[in-house]
Amino acid sequence: MIKPSSNGDWIVAGIDIGGTNTEIGLIDSSGNCLNKTVLRTSDYADPQILTLAMSSAIEEMAGKEIEGLKGIGIGAPNGNFYSGSIEHAPNLIWKGVLPLADMMHQHIPVPVALTNDANAAAVGEMKYGKAKGMKHFISVTIGTGLGTGIVVNGDILYGHTGFAGELGHTTSIPNGRQCTCGKKGCLETYVSARGLVMTTQELLAKDHKTSHLVKLDQDLLTPYRIHQAAKEGDPVATEAFEVLGQILGRALADTVALFSPEAIFLFGGLTRAGDLLLNPARKALNECLLPIFKDSVKLELSSLNEDNAAILGAGALILNQISMQ
Amino acid sequence: MIKPSSNGDWIVAGIDIGGTNTEIGLIDSSGNCLNKTVLRTSDYADPQILTLAMSSAIEEMAGKEIEGLKGIGIGAPNGNFYSGSIEHAPNLIWKGVLPLADMMHQHIPVPVALTNDANAAAVGEMKYGKAKGMKHFISVTIGTGLGTGIVVNGDILYGHTGFAGELGHTTSIPNGRQCTCGKKGCLETYVSARGLVMTTQELLAKDHKTSHLVKLDQDLLTPYRIHQAAKEGDPVATEAFEVLGQILGRALADTVALFSPEAIFLFGGLTRAGDLLLNPARKALNECLLPIFKDSVKLELSSLNEDNAAILGAGALILNQISMQ
Repeated sequence: MIKPSSNGDWIVAGIDIGGTNTEIGLIDSSGNCLNKTVLRTSDYADPQILTLAMSSAIEEMAGKEIEGLKGIGIGAPNGNFYSGSIEHAPNLIWKGVLPLADMMHQHIPVPVALTNDANAAAVGEMKYGKAKGMKHFISVTIGTGLGTGIVVNGDILYGHTGFAGELGHTTSIPNGRQCTCGKKGCLETYVSARGLVMTTQELLAKDHKTSHLVKLDQDLLTPYRIHQAAKEGDPVATEAFEVLGQILGRALADTVALFSPEAIFLFGGLTRAGDLLLNPARKALNECLLPIFKDSVKLELSSLNEDNAAILGAGALILNQISMQ
Repeated sequence: MIKPSSNGDWIVAGIDIGGTNTEIGLIDSSGNCLNKTVLRTSDYADPQILTLAMSSAIEEMAGKEIEGLKGIGIGAPNGNFYSGSIEHAPNLIWKGVLPLADMMHQHIPVPVALTNDANAAAVGEMKYGKAKGMKHFISVTIGTGLGTGIVVNGDILYGHTGFAGELGHTTSIPNGRQCTCGKKGCLETYVSARGLVMTTQELLAKDHKTSHLVKLDQDLLTPYRIHQAAKEGDPVATEAFEVLGQILGRALADTVALFSPEAIFLFGGLTRAGDLLLNPARKALNECLLPIFKDSVKLELSSLNEDNAAILGAGALILNQISMQ
């Protein structure tokens, strides 16, 4: 039974399941993360045990307020909103189709919604970020990979299968870099942490004189180090961000031709590079836009706090669903 | 005042404005085109005069049934559904922004809706074609150029500006053929009547021994002749369709990754080539689909009768809008 909590307010739980960590938080109706717990995803070889641990964490954090729990939202790789299942996620240890929303509902009988992490970020942007009130926008999460949440007419675009929005696996360079999905030249192979490192390696192979990065061991060549080097003016590191931004900007111009969004928000670890990434991306986007879309779309960094954004997005997902019923 | 016609039925008018002809038809509630008139678009240097001529044609065809006229739908290049205007259409003789829906409404005071011709084709497919009951599908019109109508959650995707769905101007080959839009390598430069002719010319330049087409004057090298040659087994003509189909299939695989439609329907003059185009397109689509979308999407020719499809689509557009009010 769902009741208001003792202070008359509702709470929801937001869960972000990643390859490394699973974060669980309680969120009040103003969008504050009241409490947070982190589990190591890989500690749970049996997803039933993880579901139990997540439920226990919610009950423990909520205490008496559990009566005011309105629902649970989950963001997870390959999360399918329609089925409430994680389906064949390459970065998780569980294989096949996992009906996680149903499994959670059995432990805590409140509405449970599940989607992929990039869609959860877009819902968070719409509820708590810069996309408030926007009907058409796109949220691009650039981290280890590249995820996209696309909002059309105020709703996340799930498509016929539930898996729409895979911008990261559209082709940027025909016959380009090998992608983990099996295809070649996917946007994600260039615009991601992995892509940045690979571009830097390629640039260093061509020009190993002007960059201090050449002295680093290969396994120390991380996005963080490349970012630091670029801030210090290292020409190869700077060029690596330029290449990444250009490829992103071109792909976004095509995305604008298809969706005509009001804005595109960049989110995720790699966006800490700020203008190093944003400037070349904006330049390429503007150069490649069709004339009818000139000045129609903003490209900005997300304003969401990275620490809690995934949890807030997952919480917003279930809030949205409940409010639509 | 809008009343049922004398037989108790409604009618709507569908108008298709093209660079060459403007077709005007009356459509009954069962989707039959009752009557049709064709005007030469280029005869009307003043759009006010064309509007008057279109209104007169509707009144003349409808006769007494004009009292049952429920609305007017218009498909036109660069037609903006939100504003009801034709905006900067490169293939029409009128320049700038033309508030055509308002202009028609002043002559015949019924609801008037306007969109681009590719969106009108998609609405027609949803109302009278194979897309009946589908919530997510894409209609691709391949003629002189390439137009796209994208349906998301049962509605045409117009986006923030009203101009969403420009698949023809997404990049297929980076730094490829010069497009009329100012960009290079747009899908439309390869997958269109113009694209087919250009590919055939390129192939003939490489191999002028095995094809009878090489004996033709350049200005006789039309899509029709290339189609006839391919049907007769001409290797260059066949390869030209294969190249076109492959590039289309690859672009559609990326489109599926973004939209996850249930089906893609091909429409327009070039689809008369049937399997010559469809087979290589299906092959490339299936090869380039992400694993999660395998077997989730059909690629088929539209079942709409090409003669009246544009008019029916425009009529369906206004019917849709009225029924949603």
